[in-house]
Amino acid sequence: MKIGIIQQHNTSDIKDNKERLASKIAKLAKDGAELIVLQELHNSLYFCQVEDVDNFDLAEPIPGPSTEFYGRIAKENGIVLVTSLFEKRAAGLYHNTAVVFENDGSIAGKYRKMHIPDDPGYYEKFYFTPGDLGFHPIDTSVGRLGVLVCWDQWYPEAARLMALQGAEILIYPTAIGYDPNDTEDEQQRQRTAWQTVMRGHAVANGLPVVAVNRVGLESIQNSKSKIQNYDYQEDAKAQQTIGNQKPPLGGGLVGTPCIPFWGTSFVCGPQGEILYQSPEDKEDVYIVDVDMKRCEQVRRWWPFLRDRRIDNYGGITKRFID
Amino acid sequence: MKIGIIQQHNTSDIKDNKERLASKIAKLAKDGAELIVLQELHNSLYFCQVEDVDNFDLAEPIPGPSTEFYGRIAKENGIVLVTSLFEKRAAGLYHNTAVVFENDGSIAGKYRKMHIPDDPGYYEKFYFTPGDLGFHPIDTSVGRLGVLVCWDQWYPEAARLMALQGAEILIYPTAIGYDPNDTEDEQQRQRTAWQTVMRGHAVANGLPVVAVNRVGLESIQNSKSKIQNYDYQEDAKAQQTIGNQKPPLGGGLVGTPCIPFWGTSFVCGPQGEILYQSPEDKEDVYIVDVDMKRCEQVRRWWPFLRDRRIDNYGGITKRFID
Repeated sequence: MKIGIIQQHNTSDIKDNKERLASKIAKLAKDGAELIVLQELHNSLYFCQVEDVDNFDLAEPIPGPSTEFYGRIAKENGIVLVTSLFEKRAAGLYHNTAVVFENDGSIAGKYRKMHIPDDPGYYEKFYFTPGDLGFHPIDTSVGRLGVLVCWDQWYPEAARLMALQGAEILIYPTAIGYDPNDTEDEQQRQRTAWQTVMRGHAVANGLPVVAVNRVGLESIQNSKSKIQNYDYQEDAKAQQTIGNQKPPLGGGLVGTPCIPFWGTSFVCGPQGEILYQSPEDKEDVYIVDVDMKRCEQVRRWWPFLRDRRIDNYGGITKRFID
Repeated sequence: MKIGIIQQHNTSDIKDNKERLASKIAKLAKDGAELIVLQELHNSLYFCQVEDVDNFDLAEPIPGPSTEFYGRIAKENGIVLVTSLFEKRAAGLYHNTAVVFENDGSIAGKYRKMHIPDDPGYYEKFYFTPGDLGFHPIDTSVGRLGVLVCWDQWYPEAARLMALQGAEILIYPTAIGYDPNDTEDEQQRQRTAWQTVMRGHAVANGLPVVAVNRVGLESIQNSKSKIQNYDYQEDAKAQQTIGNQKPPLGGGLVGTPCIPFWGTSFVCGPQGEILYQSPEDKEDVYIVDVDMKRCEQVRRWWPFLRDRRIDNYGGITKRFID
């Protein structure tokens, strides 16, 4: 299966963000992609850096303007498309929702992010009600997709539940970056941990994993637009105008909230082997060819599903066993 | 916490295997180790390469001669010791059992391997009844130890259940090696996957992981003994006398059953970061100093336990959801 990934640097210019995604999708489709995966909340800046009620204006109903926009793109390009939207379900009720489009433009299914983080700079519990649709893969013409979102990626339970329902691949639209206050060592440890835990899900379930992350420094004040080829080094220089060479993170800290997203989108095979990895500091548009037949072979070698001790897993549904 | 690991090449000379372990334990203790972890089934050759009823002679009751032997060693050296024994529970009823000794020589607890593999060359379902003690950590003077065994290492459920019961570290005595019929690429992919899935457990649970593996080529006919410093290259040459430069694997295949165990014992921190890794082709005796206080800090940064969707994890206890 030919999987296209788009790792983009976003600005406050939503129209431009979407147009750039549209042209990249068209390019990937022309080059043979059958499935295309976008990063988390790809329409706008990552607004969860601050708690601001005005940001609820960014939310849309599903179906709504964005599903119409991306549905049309999926149809025009004849591809299955995984998007990540800010869903307005009712006044005062919002979700972080992945919507998957079939190649005829219809909605194949949606997944509402189940695990919601809340860290300095990632105030998602303020914006998103935890998903109430459960963990269920979405059937499409290219296969059964185990679509999860960002914070879900740290939870083996989510990956396993997708695998047990026949998901053929795990897909994570993501928004994660460095804390600029951390040492370089700590930053790299975190980025590696993030990738390692998902590669672990690949191994434990004998499934490929696709993770697509944002890239570049995003500040709520950063309205630099029309960036075709984002360059982290150049932008870092530009950011000095904000007044911090090493910008502080998060709305709760001093200075301008901004996060340097670490890119590193990747695709790995069912043994956790990296098939492709995007740069950490540049936009990227790439097609990865995943051998879906290999997964069954790997599961024959390593038949983990055969030996699960389901008679002893009941404690998993407890908060803590004390 | 200072953790000693012993990666050993075993031969058919059980007395010699045990004496070598005893002297290495004494050395580690003298050098300051508080906890020492041995590889899986460290007394003998890895007899599960073939299905042979005579091998049940290797099993012992618990308590029995081996627990007396290792209990005395734990007491003499004042260390907590994780061993891995072939337990005879009754005639015709055997387990693969990890026994943990307190530093006064008493048995702190035991864990009967819950997930039992069965692959060519690893005919464990023939020998071991799956454990019936469940997944429970063992309390010792150096902390609450999440002791699991080998095949368990591929199961996120086992690691999670230990973490939910307050385990402070995950420990895996292991016996795993290459299939000599595989390509070099495939061999490395498997070895990396094995390490990756355990590093993933570390990340998902915010816990350090210790995995101790056997090393070197073991053939049931291989009675080379008194090896103090095992060298894989030298042994590979010696093995040519068996008649295969690249020996076939497993009892079901032609030739002499033998497995080149891949060593690579390792200790990683709560972000999956490798703190130490043994060579893949040599014996190793090493002390790793693990900062146990760091684990709580990592869990404060990444509070995964806070956000688990236990209301939606029920499906984990199903064989498959179809």
